[in-house]
Amino acid sequence: MEVAASKPVLQVAAICGSLRKASFNRGLIRGAIQLCESGAVDGLWIEHISIDALPFLNTDLEVGGEFPAAVEAFRRSIRASDAVLIACPEYNYSISGPLKNAMDWASRPPNAWAAKPAAIVSAGGGYGGKLAQQHLRQVGVFLDLHFINKPEFTLNVFQSPKFDEEGNLIDEETKEKLKQVLLALQSFALKMKGSP
Amino acid sequence: MEVAASKPVLQVAAICGSLRKASFNRGLIRGAIQLCESGAVDGLWIEHISIDALPFLNTDLEVGGEFPAAVEAFRRSIRASDAVLIACPEYNYSISGPLKNAMDWASRPPNAWAAKPAAIVSAGGGYGGKLAQQHLRQVGVFLDLHFINKPEFTLNVFQSPKFDEEGNLIDEETKEKLKQVLLALQSFALKMKGSP
Amino acid sequence: MEVAASKPVLQVAAICGSLRKASFNRGLIRGAIQLCESGAVDGLWIEHISIDALPFLNTDLEVGGEFPAAVEAFRRSIRASDAVLIACPEYNYSISGPLKNAMDWASRPPNAWAAKPAAIVSAGGGYGGKLAQQHLRQVGVFLDLHFINKPEFTLNVFQSPKFDEEGNLIDEETKEKLKQVLLALQSFALKMKGSP
Amino acid sequence: MEVAASKPVLQVAAICGSLRKASFNRGLIRGAIQLCESGAVDGLWIEHISIDALPFLNTDLEVGGEFPAAVEAFRRSIRASDAVLIACPEYNYSISGPLKNAMDWASRPPNAWAAKPAAIVSAGGGYGGKLAQQHLRQVGVFLDLHFINKPEFTLNVFQSPKFDEEGNLIDEETKEKLKQVLLALQSFALKMKGSP
Repeated sequence: MEVAASKPVLQVAAICGSLRKASFNRGLIRGAIQLCESGAVDGLWIEHISIDALPFLNTDLEVGGEFPAAVEAFRRSIRASDAVLIACPEYNYSISGPLKNAMDWASRPPNAWAAKPAAIVSAGGGYGGKLAQQHLRQVGVFLDLHFINKPEFTLNVFQSPKFDEEGNLIDEETKEKLKQVLLALQSFALKMKGSP
Repeated sequence: MEVAASKPVLQVAAICGSLRKASFNRGLIRGAIQLCESGAVDGLWIEHISIDALPFLNTDLEVGGEFPAAVEAFRRSIRASDAVLIACPEYNYSISGPLKNAMDWASRPPNAWAAKPAAIVSAGGGYGGKLAQQHLRQVGVFLDLHFINKPEFTLNVFQSPKFDEEGNLIDEETKEKLKQVLLALQSFALKMKGSP
Repeated sequence: MEVAASKPVLQVAAICGSLRKASFNRGLIRGAIQLCESGAVDGLWIEHISIDALPFLNTDLEVGGEFPAAVEAFRRSIRASDAVLIACPEYNYSISGPLKNAMDWASRPPNAWAAKPAAIVSAGGGYGGKLAQQHLRQVGVFLDLHFINKPEFTLNVFQSPKFDEEGNLIDEETKEKLKQVLLALQSFALKMKGSP
Repeated sequence: MEVAASKPVLQVAAICGSLRKASFNRGLIRGAIQLCESGAVDGLWIEHISIDALPFLNTDLEVGGEFPAAVEAFRRSIRASDAVLIACPEYNYSISGPLKNAMDWASRPPNAWAAKPAAIVSAGGGYGGKLAQQHLRQVGVFLDLHFINKPEFTLNVFQSPKFDEEGNLIDEETKEKLKQVLLALQSFALKMKGSP
């Protein structure tokens, strides 16, 4: 039996900007992981990289060229990834403090984000994250993150129930949209890598 | 002896977005306080409100309608102020995580920032904070902060020494610019209050 | 003799960023004018200042310190106003070319916008103008326009019919929201003027 | 006969957001063209696509599915290009009206910008275009333009003479920076195309 040459499996570091236990944005990441594990998306391996243990950014904490242990571990995970998936809630028309803090820690030289392909997904009220995503994209210019443009993913969680009581994504239409984001990220990442 | 009717003294809450001990932005706040204490600016009383003890925003920490003690104290200080002065460093083309975090905590209902006049000052490399200030202003739209437009204050700290070794502002031209910001904030705040 | 102390009548220059004849944004301005003429809003006089005749901004057209006639007329109308109402459509996540062009012409020294209170209203698809409004606010920082923060007014015209076939505002709820914007602009403008 | 496998020549559509005859931004485009014609950059062919003849965007001008002739010609040039170079002046903290107008015309369905790689260069006072570039990038998200992140190119034309009296780029250091932008655009465009 012949085996077709298979696509390389891309490692995706997923981070969530909300620290809430039942965060819908955290639910989007679980949903994305499930899409890959179930085989609905092939060739991506998504790992949730927690930002909960990071201290507030303060370069006084960098002693002798060393980062605090939690920071070092976070940075290593980002560096090891082929692509980044950011679940980005919107707080007051911008990104959350914990998310910005994590972005900044991994940007300290040498910048762990450099040249990574990336995608953003957001769940929230109002416009579902549209304004926050634009701020994150501006941050990404300096960090040299290459965000996909399309499809954009924002989700108003108050319009209809998209998650179960534990914050797991249950809406099929939303799962399909999320899948399209992952496929676009994969396709873009492969181009960036020069893979066929 | 006759006493001229004096302007009311406005209470200004000053917050600094950098946690570094020798932060230049912290130095700008000390410089502003000194301008008021020395009498160079009359009718403003500036107090530095530390954001160091705040936890990361996580609404799971709001138990029974209560905020964590450090958050409650921070919110009370903002609410008690007549105006706000924000020393806003630029990290990766946006505001710092600790600053965003503090803004968000005080925005939790009831929003402590509502209808406050505010001014931004920034010290840093590159453009000195120009892009971060625009993000902060966008956040301010939702928070209902009324930022003064002019003068804008950004300071490139690498072009010439503006601070001494302890991070205290020593440059006279910069002090004068800072004074103009404070006077504009005062004038705007008095108008907003309907004071003559 | 008794005279009821009356509020001064504020002159509001209204400009529309869309050139379409049946523009919904133009309809918002007509709606605002009607609210004032009908007495629903007292103390504001709104005049629509057309931007249709302006050439593209090109400082080569400023000859001998003179602006082209249409530009000069436009600038005079802005200068004569006490406040500004901008109907701001969203094109591709930002403000329209004709609107930006008009803003820029009136900014040429001496800046006709300086220190004017202003409000933004938008009608459109998608988020109804949310992203465009943020760009306009950033422009306003440099121009020294003082935008009100609340209420924000964006209108998704596709969710239900808000306008008749000639583009006139017919939805009562939307009229009420528009009225609240005008009242907030009026209140803010009076404070800025130091009027009681 | 041996033929060295040569890189494909990419067609770059260059547009300038300023209409001034002696525009420095126009000078940057001439400089870029010259870098390619002189062989300093190999494999790019840059053509300046004028936006001077475009009318203001007004969808009333689209009659029977036809665009005005100048618009149609402009759209055709964009569509035919492999990549886009935008010389983006900053007017009042945002992009110019003529530039936004051109972007919008070519975005009318079918969107001529879709999936194009792009780079931005700016010359101006103050921050040299930094804030305008961020607005242009936000527009690009909707248009599905893929901007390179690095190197960023902003030029303060008042710090030292970079152009001769006719607005031609004469500063060698600036030429080198411009060359690096073109090489980065080329490399990115080839990846996007799946070329080796």
